[in-house]
Amino acid sequence: MDIAEKIEEIKVLTRKARTSGKSIGFVPTMGALHAGHVSLIEAACSRTDYVVVSIFVNPVQFSPGEDLENYPRTLEDDRAKCQSAGADLIFVPSVKEMYPDKLQSWVEVEGQLTENLCGKSRPGHFRGVTTVCAKLFNIVMPDIAFFGRKDAQQAAVLKKMVKDLNMPLQLQVCPIIREKSGLAMSSRNKYLSDKERQDAAVLYQSLVKCREMVDSGTRNARLLVDTMRKMISNVDGAEIDYIQIVDPDTLEDVDTVEKQAMAALAVKIGPARLIDNIMLNVSAAG
Amino acid sequence: MDIAEKIEEIKVLTRKARTSGKSIGFVPTMGALHAGHVSLIEAACSRTDYVVVSIFVNPVQFSPGEDLENYPRTLEDDRAKCQSAGADLIFVPSVKEMYPDKLQSWVEVEGQLTENLCGKSRPGHFRGVTTVCAKLFNIVMPDIAFFGRKDAQQAAVLKKMVKDLNMPLQLQVCPIIREKSGLAMSSRNKYLSDKERQDAAVLYQSLVKCREMVDSGTRNARLLVDTMRKMISNVDGAEIDYIQIVDPDTLEDVDTVEKQAMAALAVKIGPARLIDNIMLNVSAAG
Repeated sequence: MDIAEKIEEIKVLTRKARTSGKSIGFVPTMGALHAGHVSLIEAACSRTDYVVVSIFVNPVQFSPGEDLENYPRTLEDDRAKCQSAGADLIFVPSVKEMYPDKLQSWVEVEGQLTENLCGKSRPGHFRGVTTVCAKLFNIVMPDIAFFGRKDAQQAAVLKKMVKDLNMPLQLQVCPIIREKSGLAMSSRNKYLSDKERQDAAVLYQSLVKCREMVDSGTRNARLLVDTMRKMISNVDGAEIDYIQIVDPDTLEDVDTVEKQAMAALAVKIGPARLIDNIMLNVSAAG
Repeated sequence: MDIAEKIEEIKVLTRKARTSGKSIGFVPTMGALHAGHVSLIEAACSRTDYVVVSIFVNPVQFSPGEDLENYPRTLEDDRAKCQSAGADLIFVPSVKEMYPDKLQSWVEVEGQLTENLCGKSRPGHFRGVTTVCAKLFNIVMPDIAFFGRKDAQQAAVLKKMVKDLNMPLQLQVCPIIREKSGLAMSSRNKYLSDKERQDAAVLYQSLVKCREMVDSGTRNARLLVDTMRKMISNVDGAEIDYIQIVDPDTLEDVDTVEKQAMAALAVKIGPARLIDNIMLNVSAAG
């Protein structure tokens, strides 16, 4: 496994792999790798010949007052996880390497895709995500890039970007990996105390309850959201940012669940802002 | 020479060229080709092995009230010019092919680069240019893309975009090609009557005068602009949009010409809004 800090090194190594006929898989991360990331690297290894993992805490996707400074950095541990998962190359650029000049060029996706859900409380976040992903895609030139469904809005935004701008790659969205309690794996789970981590299990429990209600015939989004809100509000100190039922592609709110919808939430538990989601499917017979 | 209307055909043909070891040159145009475009195709043929010309009147770079509807379309003539200049492939997509869905993803360059000069009177124009060029670059995946210096602001904006976003190509900016009178070649010259075409020669004359003044020691931008303004105002019906002296990379206004600057202008002559520019160089001894 190679490790490189410079864009030029990545270009040379990926060009060599490409020229020798290998397909290139890419897993962009902010490090602090957990089992969710490992599952993405493993998926990349199973579908492509040469797997690149980037580790870059991207400043332009953090809003002022967010956790940029405190975001966990665990490079030695990340390196071991990449190696054992089968990655071929880790890209660990400095901020200066990624943003050598004043950045004036942005890739931006408009509309509810970026304005709804997390877009409401994190203005500019998705512009930072799409811009850094466009840069990384241009550097690595992967055949397939792998993202986790935990960040469902990110995946939907990036899918639209790739399609609208004819970017020459596929996106593969992989299942959420959860702790035993059901809590979705997240680098930000490190911020939680033991008590908070137990409390945080309610997020997935509320999503499962929501899906059960849909499976039992409930279609009214308000009813679903109210039920989830009550469950989560029972936890002392849980601060709900949003709980919404949306179209999984456009991320527009839906009043009634038809065919497929997504329940998505963001809740602050102690110091950690956590997000999670679940797909709601109404069968043709339902 | 091949002609294709579909993105997938372009991908197949350029992949074939790339796989056989050919470098790819790209000349994006809006058609109505003239000797300026031909010089770009010839430059591409001299520097790369497989030359793609796109002909696409891009609606998203026109503002409401501009000449989108009337923009000259001369496909048969364009095809002959591409062929004789040595192009290998013409890409002539429909609007539906380029924008099949509601476009929500944009590539945008911020700051004076897009806000100064033409940016002041054509809001959204450069966002349309950078977005369509990003799309075309992703489709064609050229090694080198060729642009004319007549559209100096466009070239500066695209250079910043390519650098900021790590796009895997070079931009080559080629000299302005002029009519005998000095008038810069432009598809929009077709809008001019014979009389207007004669009158329009004053634009280049004023730029040459500006450069002569700099060569003779004038450094004051206001003095240069005033002299040009007087010359152009002598032409009946000439409507000056702007005459400015700017830094050629950042396009910020300069008060005093030091080292290198650019004189740029946009003037409406009859029905045609014409642009032109000239480089101003102060030698180390100057």
